[in-house]
Amino acid sequence: LTSIYKGTRKLSSSIAEGKEPDGGPGGLFTSLFSTDELISLTSDAAWVQAMLDTESALAASLADADVIPTAAATEIAAYCRADRFDAALLGRQARASGNPVVPLVTALRDEVSQTAAQWVHWGATSQDILDTAAALVSRSATVAIDRSLRELADGCAALAQAHRDTLMTARTLLQPALPTTFGLKAAGWLVAADAARDQLTHARTGLAVQLGGAAGTLASLGADGPAVVALLAHRLDLAEPIMPWHTDRQRLATFAAALAGASGVAAKITYDIALLMQDEVGEVAASNVPGSGGSSALPQKHNPVDAAVAGGAARRVSALVAVLYGAMAHEHERGIGNWQAEWETLTELLRLSGGAVATAADRVSGLHINPDAMARNLTGSGGLILAERVLAELTRRAGRVEAQRLVTEAMAHAAASGSSFDAELRSEVAPTWLSPDEIDVLLDPAGYLGSSGVFIDRALSAHEERED
Amino acid sequence: LTSIYKGTRKLSSSIAEGKEPDGGPGGLFTSLFSTDELISLTSDAAWVQAMLDTESALAASLADADVIPTAAATEIAAYCRADRFDAALLGRQARASGNPVVPLVTALRDEVSQTAAQWVHWGATSQDILDTAAALVSRSATVAIDRSLRELADGCAALAQAHRDTLMTARTLLQPALPTTFGLKAAGWLVAADAARDQLTHARTGLAVQLGGAAGTLASLGADGPAVVALLAHRLDLAEPIMPWHTDRQRLATFAAALAGASGVAAKITYDIALLMQDEVGEVAASNVPGSGGSSALPQKHNPVDAAVAGGAARRVSALVAVLYGAMAHEHERGIGNWQAEWETLTELLRLSGGAVATAADRVSGLHINPDAMARNLTGSGGLILAERVLAELTRRAGRVEAQRLVTEAMAHAAASGSSFDAELRSEVAPTWLSPDEIDVLLDPAGYLGSSGVFIDRALSAHEERED
Amino acid sequence: LTSIYKGTRKLSSSIAEGKEPDGGPGGLFTSLFSTDELISLTSDAAWVQAMLDTESALAASLADADVIPTAAATEIAAYCRADRFDAALLGRQARASGNPVVPLVTALRDEVSQTAAQWVHWGATSQDILDTAAALVSRSATVAIDRSLRELADGCAALAQAHRDTLMTARTLLQPALPTTFGLKAAGWLVAADAARDQLTHARTGLAVQLGGAAGTLASLGADGPAVVALLAHRLDLAEPIMPWHTDRQRLATFAAALAGASGVAAKITYDIALLMQDEVGEVAASNVPGSGGSSALPQKHNPVDAAVAGGAARRVSALVAVLYGAMAHEHERGIGNWQAEWETLTELLRLSGGAVATAADRVSGLHINPDAMARNLTGSGGLILAERVLAELTRRAGRVEAQRLVTEAMAHAAASGSSFDAELRSEVAPTWLSPDEIDVLLDPAGYLGSSGVFIDRALSAHEERED
Amino acid sequence: LTSIYKGTRKLSSSIAEGKEPDGGPGGLFTSLFSTDELISLTSDAAWVQAMLDTESALAASLADADVIPTAAATEIAAYCRADRFDAALLGRQARASGNPVVPLVTALRDEVSQTAAQWVHWGATSQDILDTAAALVSRSATVAIDRSLRELADGCAALAQAHRDTLMTARTLLQPALPTTFGLKAAGWLVAADAARDQLTHARTGLAVQLGGAAGTLASLGADGPAVVALLAHRLDLAEPIMPWHTDRQRLATFAAALAGASGVAAKITYDIALLMQDEVGEVAASNVPGSGGSSALPQKHNPVDAAVAGGAARRVSALVAVLYGAMAHEHERGIGNWQAEWETLTELLRLSGGAVATAADRVSGLHINPDAMARNLTGSGGLILAERVLAELTRRAGRVEAQRLVTEAMAHAAASGSSFDAELRSEVAPTWLSPDEIDVLLDPAGYLGSSGVFIDRALSAHEERED
Repeated sequence: LTSIYKGTRKLSSSIAEGKEPDGGPGGLFTSLFSTDELISLTSDAAWVQAMLDTESALAASLADADVIPTAAATEIAAYCRADRFDAALLGRQARASGNPVVPLVTALRDEVSQTAAQWVHWGATSQDILDTAAALVSRSATVAIDRSLRELADGCAALAQAHRDTLMTARTLLQPALPTTFGLKAAGWLVAADAARDQLTHARTGLAVQLGGAAGTLASLGADGPAVVALLAHRLDLAEPIMPWHTDRQRLATFAAALAGASGVAAKITYDIALLMQDEVGEVAASNVPGSGGSSALPQKHNPVDAAVAGGAARRVSALVAVLYGAMAHEHERGIGNWQAEWETLTELLRLSGGAVATAADRVSGLHINPDAMARNLTGSGGLILAERVLAELTRRAGRVEAQRLVTEAMAHAAASGSSFDAELRSEVAPTWLSPDEIDVLLDPAGYLGSSGVFIDRALSAHEERED
Repeated sequence: LTSIYKGTRKLSSSIAEGKEPDGGPGGLFTSLFSTDELISLTSDAAWVQAMLDTESALAASLADADVIPTAAATEIAAYCRADRFDAALLGRQARASGNPVVPLVTALRDEVSQTAAQWVHWGATSQDILDTAAALVSRSATVAIDRSLRELADGCAALAQAHRDTLMTARTLLQPALPTTFGLKAAGWLVAADAARDQLTHARTGLAVQLGGAAGTLASLGADGPAVVALLAHRLDLAEPIMPWHTDRQRLATFAAALAGASGVAAKITYDIALLMQDEVGEVAASNVPGSGGSSALPQKHNPVDAAVAGGAARRVSALVAVLYGAMAHEHERGIGNWQAEWETLTELLRLSGGAVATAADRVSGLHINPDAMARNLTGSGGLILAERVLAELTRRAGRVEAQRLVTEAMAHAAASGSSFDAELRSEVAPTWLSPDEIDVLLDPAGYLGSSGVFIDRALSAHEERED
Repeated sequence: LTSIYKGTRKLSSSIAEGKEPDGGPGGLFTSLFSTDELISLTSDAAWVQAMLDTESALAASLADADVIPTAAATEIAAYCRADRFDAALLGRQARASGNPVVPLVTALRDEVSQTAAQWVHWGATSQDILDTAAALVSRSATVAIDRSLRELADGCAALAQAHRDTLMTARTLLQPALPTTFGLKAAGWLVAADAARDQLTHARTGLAVQLGGAAGTLASLGADGPAVVALLAHRLDLAEPIMPWHTDRQRLATFAAALAGASGVAAKITYDIALLMQDEVGEVAASNVPGSGGSSALPQKHNPVDAAVAGGAARRVSALVAVLYGAMAHEHERGIGNWQAEWETLTELLRLSGGAVATAADRVSGLHINPDAMARNLTGSGGLILAERVLAELTRRAGRVEAQRLVTEAMAHAAASGSSFDAELRSEVAPTWLSPDEIDVLLDPAGYLGSSGVFIDRALSAHEERED
Repeated sequence: LTSIYKGTRKLSSSIAEGKEPDGGPGGLFTSLFSTDELISLTSDAAWVQAMLDTESALAASLADADVIPTAAATEIAAYCRADRFDAALLGRQARASGNPVVPLVTALRDEVSQTAAQWVHWGATSQDILDTAAALVSRSATVAIDRSLRELADGCAALAQAHRDTLMTARTLLQPALPTTFGLKAAGWLVAADAARDQLTHARTGLAVQLGGAAGTLASLGADGPAVVALLAHRLDLAEPIMPWHTDRQRLATFAAALAGASGVAAKITYDIALLMQDEVGEVAASNVPGSGGSSALPQKHNPVDAAVAGGAARRVSALVAVLYGAMAHEHERGIGNWQAEWETLTELLRLSGGAVATAADRVSGLHINPDAMARNLTGSGGLILAERVLAELTRRAGRVEAQRLVTEAMAHAAASGSSFDAELRSEVAPTWLSPDEIDVLLDPAGYLGSSGVFIDRALSAHEERED
């Protein structure tokens, strides 16, 4: 047997060229939030092709199991090309039956010979075709999304390595906290991106073939059911479930959750970058692609478009994942509304999460780092950013209560007089407890990085040890 | 001044014909969950046209206020036709700037003369155009949605009137509760549909023109800003806000909430119908449009497709409304991700809620009622459905404790012996407390309808008194 | 008739003292995200009291309508005090019946005399009591939330007035855009807060009494139903619905949406403040309440706790509103799961949105403004922030294309040479097109504020004209 | 080293007794939607204990690493008991700092000796304590939830085995589809419950210790950081992360998603049961626990309370999971609002999902099956339920087009004349194509079950092969 699905889905030629029934890759807003590739991989044409691939593989599996004639399967396969069908028309015809498989099967039967027609869709129900198509579309889109995640992770790894020792301010609740390195920040992004890949891989393995017939019993296949399911799973390179999963939607919901995780990582990274790009912070800059980030009114603008796109996508994705979890209680053997809510939601999830990750990967790969601004902001606090360290050292020497008093007083004096924490330490605290040299050491941010380097190394090692 | 927007939006001819850049009205799944009209009214072409209408009306308003030459405004207006622009291309170009207005303005400037080009988009920023376009698209779609809601309400009113006295079982937590009438059930739907119209009207009045320039100050218009805003609002027949609303998204979120309300009503009605259509219940049936509700495998099927469609749409809508409320914290003078998350979400909200309501209206209008089945199910309980009434009467005669004991015993005996509550009452309870005639009266469902008739009349009166 | 509900609900003495059955106002996390007042107004005790108030008012209304003896109503009223009941015990007992009204009614019947017991809950069903209680709890909490919204609006108005001319940088997508005033920013917050009040008032008027009996027919009240509903509505000072609303949940969902709007406004305002509090921006500071904003590790920290609290609350609120809209399809005459999902969700919505607004009001009222930092950041761009204005003026003199070229070049030179846009204008552009004085004028931010003042005045006028 | 966490968390004695600071296990609504055990395991006291366990284990780990004196760690441990602290008071104090760790650390320092005080919380920040506590609370609650899932799965397995051959109607979109067995339906539930366990186990392994200090660098621990993290992870029996996960929230979000999956399974099962319990269907009944499912008005009611509870919980859970995915973009090194939104959301997720699963497990274990009603409903269609089979056989004999015509005609005649499909087949179709005996065989539902038995066996085998 030769699986027709290996790696990225092979699209029919018309789709590959982008001449899709729904008018080219992307639209007014769609293109902004996704990539051309993902728009194609989840287009109407791609869905139709995935449904046809399922019908075709089903016929072939039935023939392998001697349920239908091989000639019929061969003939059916020849007609299972999305460019032979009008997706928009199928959509309108779907209103009668509530799903597009019914008109698609009718159309396919009309195409093939009378003899083959009776074997089209043999043993299957609409949900078998749509659920398996959903798995196929998800799987092929996942290849693209995973590639973007890898690019994102690689980009973060490069930054983590290059800026292992680039000092900057760590900020919590948007306030300066302690010194850190840009490398550690990038390492945090890296670990998150790699974790998103792991979750996506975990979820992808759950994508299974669905074949149960009208009620999940495979009644019309008699005793051949299990064999046909196994053959179909093998042909389509999808997991073979213990039994049909038409009424258990965890496979899709878990997959959606993994996509939401990937989107969230993209949103986190691009928002961090947008915050660092603020004019008053200025620690990173977007690459100077001409025209990028431009405004319709303001000539000076270089907007962090990527954060707008990835953040906008992630906000939508987190709501869409709730649709899938909220629609799990399919009534009896097929849901009424619950099932139908999944289809476009899945398409959106794939497009938006893939778009968010690709956008983040682009941004990270072209990021300009400004170590001088990082250093300037770090020292701008007049030593305050190392107050924890000073307090700890004073605690060791003077006890916690006295140390607290000394540090609080130095901060208050600095604030009141307009001097700095550094200066106050030297003039007020130093004489008794700390020498000027000791203060120099305490206020040196490079000396207070704790495990930053170790964490970066660990993140890089874990990334490098990945097999892909 | 002649407003270019009255009632339903006048679409440019190409849109009216359905030759939209994105490939005809609807797609594989889109058509299932929305109407052709709403798909067109919210299509890429409709959005482009709404943006162009805003640019055109802005130029005209600027000319009215003597800010730009009238000739320039006239020329700009002539080029503001969606069929002159490629929405898919604009979408891809939008990736550079983060929104499609920037390339649209560039393209429009390229079309008009050098002289007019400088006045294109004068005083405005991208968000002005997109937010105002969103209001225009929402407003025109609302006309269609409101029409469907009215059809839905009218259909429910007809059912309430016709079945004012059609007895049936009221069910709570999916269990028989008391007798009611199908008229009262329909009256409940009616009141809900009318209430949804009220909320939608309330929200629609909040749709306002947005014009603030690059930062909400209208700086480039000098002292002319407020006058231009007023003129623009008048031209576009949108509300004039106290000040630009670019950073306060309640208008859109409230509008989305109204759409979610409408969807929820549609889901409630169609799900009730689907439950009544269950084979074992059989109290209503869908109209016998040939092929409607058909299955890909089962010849006997008449699926309640409308509940699947409206319910599926409503599930998605309720999550989408959370996107808009969750994206209200636009950073400073323009959000980064928050704003961008709104666009496709709004389109989906309009399509899905309109589709859900239209589907429910269709279903209600063609509904077949089966009063015999209603009566059969009602009497099938052997009088149990009137246990509350019997208990109340016995309470009046024997006190609460004794009454409770009698009723509980009768129910238990009936369950144990396979007889009926009715029979047990007659044999065990009657001799002491109730005469056979009294039991007849107590167990007559038509005599235990309370305020049903009054409520139906009130609902119908309120519906008839509406001005539209 | 004397309504027992006017303005803020009168809580029973035990609740007023905060000795609630569930252990005092607030808990480990609850207190952080809400106010003591709102926690009390939505506590278990408050819910029990609201259910008892409904039972009590129902008995009184039934007595007014001569359905039950006045003595029974009087006796029932005397026992309707939350401190007589154990909410936690009711909660555990509720597991049998699926709602806490069943055990509450049983407990109340056990308290009163045999004679009165039979009239407890007469004509009502559990949902009548819970839905009406939900309206009462919502209404009383709304008084508190509306008060906080008014404080928030007043605080914003004070800032708008005081800083009508305080120049600062407007920022879009987190990048400097144009000059604005802090007064205009505060006016935007003001208009949003006032709009949230309007939506909340609109939604509050929809809170209605629910009385339909077991199935919405009020069967057990015979012909007295409508009169009793009217009396009950009057007693509880709630709206009287056309018919029972047990199966139409728009009233609650719309109310929830208004709360989400209020939360969103609070999140917007506090997040803006947190961004302005960033060390590198430094344009505002929190009030120096000792200990406020402190960290467990860092002595120098002054965290914008309010943004953390209001933002955290708003994120949760936007998801909770989706629960209510998503649960509208109550099955038949009482939902199974849909209805039950509302109760704690409503409590959370009230607590969180009220907490978010109160937090924002506190923050706004104690805000320290730093006009010097605003001015410093504004001029820090070397004139770039006025590039739009320069471009417009040059467009008038040299045409759009040449103007664009000149400005782009000046920006590029400034970036390349490390000089400023201002300097480049003077050295390269000025000789031909602009005099030094003209450049001074063009680069003066105070001269490029457009309609800022007008918008502020309008916002303040609209605020002052409000009747409350 | 002896881990203080093995299996279910050992709660301090006061918690075990249920004398929690917040007023006993559960409240008015809380008890309805969760179990006493889960309410306790996620109570304020449990959170405080988890935070104290973290502080205690941190001190011990620091002592192990020779960072602080062992005596200090021992003393700290002695005071780390939740019953020494007032959770409600901590909650109110938390308003100043934005989280309850700050006041808890202050209180703990006040309790211990001056010497030990300085080592309390050494090296840690608030988020370290709260995130690790979240992992501990989640882990201990997971033990209980997993136990309920196992009970649910075991109950389903018992039903699948016992009813392997109990014929019933399969229903799709709430309409009769084909014969199936109750065993297959139960097997579908079983596979879903086992899959939920797998996802929960997968997610639980991701629960990790968080220790990064104020900014994720562990600066104050110098070179000892990684060793202390490893020791802490070992002591608390939590995963050791590559680096601190304070800014990557996938661990929590993935865990939440698994809980949503479990809730969805519980909702699916209980809703199926509620549908089967409908009076007109009557195929299953709840166990007759006296008082269970009672109504406040209707004596005859046996409401499917479990579906109301589990369904209500699942609706809320699916929205709560969106909160966590939507809050992933923590700003820089600590989120502002994003982080804070997690705490109560997690508590709710644990309580609600655990409650839903426990409710479903209870219901399944006490379910009464009514095979007679199943058979009656199955044969009630007059053979229509086997139309697919008849069509397939006729297709084999007469070709697809003729077969379609014959079946359609028989269905139409049956509907028009009030006869049955069975009778029409015998009178109209049989003479030519099928013998009476063949019709008997075709219309025997027991002969058209396809792979039902195989699927049941597979599901049971997979369940039995599980190690736990």
